[in-house]
Amino acid sequence: MYQKGKVRKMVSVAIMGHGVVGSGVAEILLTHKQKLFSHLGEEIYIKKILDLREFPDSPIADRFTKDFEEIINDLEIRVVVEVMGGIHPAYEFVKRCLKAGKSVVTSNKELVAAHGAEFFAIAKEENTNFMFEASVGGGIPIIRPMNQCLVANNVREVAGILNGTTNFILTRMIEDGMPFDDALKLAQDLGFAERNPAADIEGHDACRKICILASLAYGRHIYPQSVHTEGITGIALEDVKFAEAFGYVIKLIGRVKKLDDGRIDILTAPMLVPFNSQLSNITNEFNGIMVRGDCTGDVVFYGKGAGKLPTASAVVADVVDCCKHLKARRFLFWADGDGKNIIDWRDSVSAMYVRASGENAAQKAEAVFGDINVTEGDGVTAMLTTEMTYRVFEEKCKALKAQGVEILSAIRIGDI
Amino acid sequence: MYQKGKVRKMVSVAIMGHGVVGSGVAEILLTHKQKLFSHLGEEIYIKKILDLREFPDSPIADRFTKDFEEIINDLEIRVVVEVMGGIHPAYEFVKRCLKAGKSVVTSNKELVAAHGAEFFAIAKEENTNFMFEASVGGGIPIIRPMNQCLVANNVREVAGILNGTTNFILTRMIEDGMPFDDALKLAQDLGFAERNPAADIEGHDACRKICILASLAYGRHIYPQSVHTEGITGIALEDVKFAEAFGYVIKLIGRVKKLDDGRIDILTAPMLVPFNSQLSNITNEFNGIMVRGDCTGDVVFYGKGAGKLPTASAVVADVVDCCKHLKARRFLFWADGDGKNIIDWRDSVSAMYVRASGENAAQKAEAVFGDINVTEGDGVTAMLTTEMTYRVFEEKCKALKAQGVEILSAIRIGDI
Repeated sequence: MYQKGKVRKMVSVAIMGHGVVGSGVAEILLTHKQKLFSHLGEEIYIKKILDLREFPDSPIADRFTKDFEEIINDLEIRVVVEVMGGIHPAYEFVKRCLKAGKSVVTSNKELVAAHGAEFFAIAKEENTNFMFEASVGGGIPIIRPMNQCLVANNVREVAGILNGTTNFILTRMIEDGMPFDDALKLAQDLGFAERNPAADIEGHDACRKICILASLAYGRHIYPQSVHTEGITGIALEDVKFAEAFGYVIKLIGRVKKLDDGRIDILTAPMLVPFNSQLSNITNEFNGIMVRGDCTGDVVFYGKGAGKLPTASAVVADVVDCCKHLKARRFLFWADGDGKNIIDWRDSVSAMYVRASGENAAQKAEAVFGDINVTEGDGVTAMLTTEMTYRVFEEKCKALKAQGVEILSAIRIGDI
Repeated sequence: MYQKGKVRKMVSVAIMGHGVVGSGVAEILLTHKQKLFSHLGEEIYIKKILDLREFPDSPIADRFTKDFEEIINDLEIRVVVEVMGGIHPAYEFVKRCLKAGKSVVTSNKELVAAHGAEFFAIAKEENTNFMFEASVGGGIPIIRPMNQCLVANNVREVAGILNGTTNFILTRMIEDGMPFDDALKLAQDLGFAERNPAADIEGHDACRKICILASLAYGRHIYPQSVHTEGITGIALEDVKFAEAFGYVIKLIGRVKKLDDGRIDILTAPMLVPFNSQLSNITNEFNGIMVRGDCTGDVVFYGKGAGKLPTASAVVADVVDCCKHLKARRFLFWADGDGKNIIDWRDSVSAMYVRASGENAAQKAEAVFGDINVTEGDGVTAMLTTEMTYRVFEEKCKALKAQGVEILSAIRIGDI
């Protein structure tokens, strides 16, 4: 507890939201108080917590407020943590805090992916900081290390398993042969699935995160609506099994590459990941992110991508950084972007996994695709093609359909 | 190239050593000059390179010197990179640079492990920075992320594959069934083995690195001479095969834990790592480091632990950080330590893998060890014991020998 009457340098902070992550942030700030003090040389004092609910049993129940104006108008509050989630009113609150010269820390990937560039511009103008380490990879340090990697590297590619819920579901399908629906239900029962599973299973959450990493890597905001996104709802157990027979596992991957001509190839989609890739071994609710630099080569970061304390500890690390840099901006920035440097997703090149049925499907596929790697079983044919653009792949599929071959599923093969 | 006559803010740096890493640092500073400038807002200008050899073909041949005094006496040089390796004269040079108020960046793990605390004390007094990201894990960002993890976490344990040479050798033994001597020769032929392979294969290099990570994690210098170290020269192909049969791979692990009573349990030794551990999948010359925090859970960092450009890019990231913080110290510090908080390595607890021969070895071992997991083959018996201190393990081995059982090898099992 904060000791009144004792002279100790301190920084006052406010926390907006007292849900899972917010209560974790308050908990760490209270339980790790001495550790934080010895690191920072100043005490981090939670002056206000904003939440519409009541928390009478909190040890700091007297510091709760339902009124944002109490935070914005308090000149002592230098750092504001936004862990409310969603866009409104988080967007308005963050903007007002930054304009008032307060530093803001958020774990809200939806907000960063939608408004990061705008926040950075305000933070730059007001000479304050906007930080979001917890928005990608939960407790895995990724934003700061990537920013560090970036200094002496041209980042060629970033690819990651960025959503724990879908990775948990796919792991159950792979390891236990559990059908998608059962695995989703299990994830919900265990509390891994978020309130609205659509954001996870349809790939939107992973898309927001790869947008954040891509914006950071290449310096211009890439908005989620510019990124082709496919979820995992169409993945069948049969695909999982054929993938294994070919030496791959299926993972939901957010991936961005810089092409030789400087344009950006970005995508969120399930991919076949080869057994020998570091990303293939990332199972259950864990996340893993690979950063491919021209100097460092591949660097992979692995850990729990969500959860109360992992995420909260990343938020607290940002709070400490903000407290250290109240008068100096940290270099963390991207400019706004118009999406014009992003290639059409149909021009993105990859080898494909295809599951098909129909008479002589393998021979017909070979005639259309050229060199393929085929496995047959149970009246269906599974195959791996060589690399081609998605546009060409679609044309070839059309040609196959005209010959009576039904394409049951098609999944990209990731060279990661 | 540096453009004369143009007013552009710049920081002058010197590089001591123009070997593999040093030439990589110069290369990155020259080839990534614009990128670094846009990040830092100042140009990093290599003013001097110290090396006793001549490099007439270098694009900056005119800036080489053989005289350290030219660096120490140049007030414009604010940051000095030490990439000479070895203790002398690196130690004396680094000390003099810090005392002169210059920031120092090093990749020299031997130097950091031997003199880190002394350098930190001087840096603190002179309000300058001493940084060493490249000393552990080459191009993998680990020092800064760990320092960040540490802020909001009590680190319970750090365990890592910290030496690429031995990991390459063990991988050849595991994947190709190649005997140790052949694998060592291959590593040397491929340039993975350092000048003196003893430092690698006897575990000293890995020991220095876990000492650096342990000192950082727990705030007091842990010197290599306080750490029990075993290399991989005693690992036989038979052990590799038995380990696999039990579901493990053998890896050289540097590991430090904080016990519940606050004491430190630190060790460098080959260990059986279970297949499902993230560290088991780190093969060839790659490194991987697991940091176990009370809030984040397990976080793993993976990448190339050595090599010219990976290591040099980590050095350059430190140089940039020093340039940004010429007047402000970064929080990176540990105090001196007397080793009194380190437990005797024989009191460290682990389960053991044992390979033994002799009549009825399995029954005798069961009578002595209690519950064991046994596999027999080719006149030898391999077994996994339950957990015990190494002291107790040695006593039990003595009792077994008295019964005519020969202990052919004994390797710890890592719970990592």
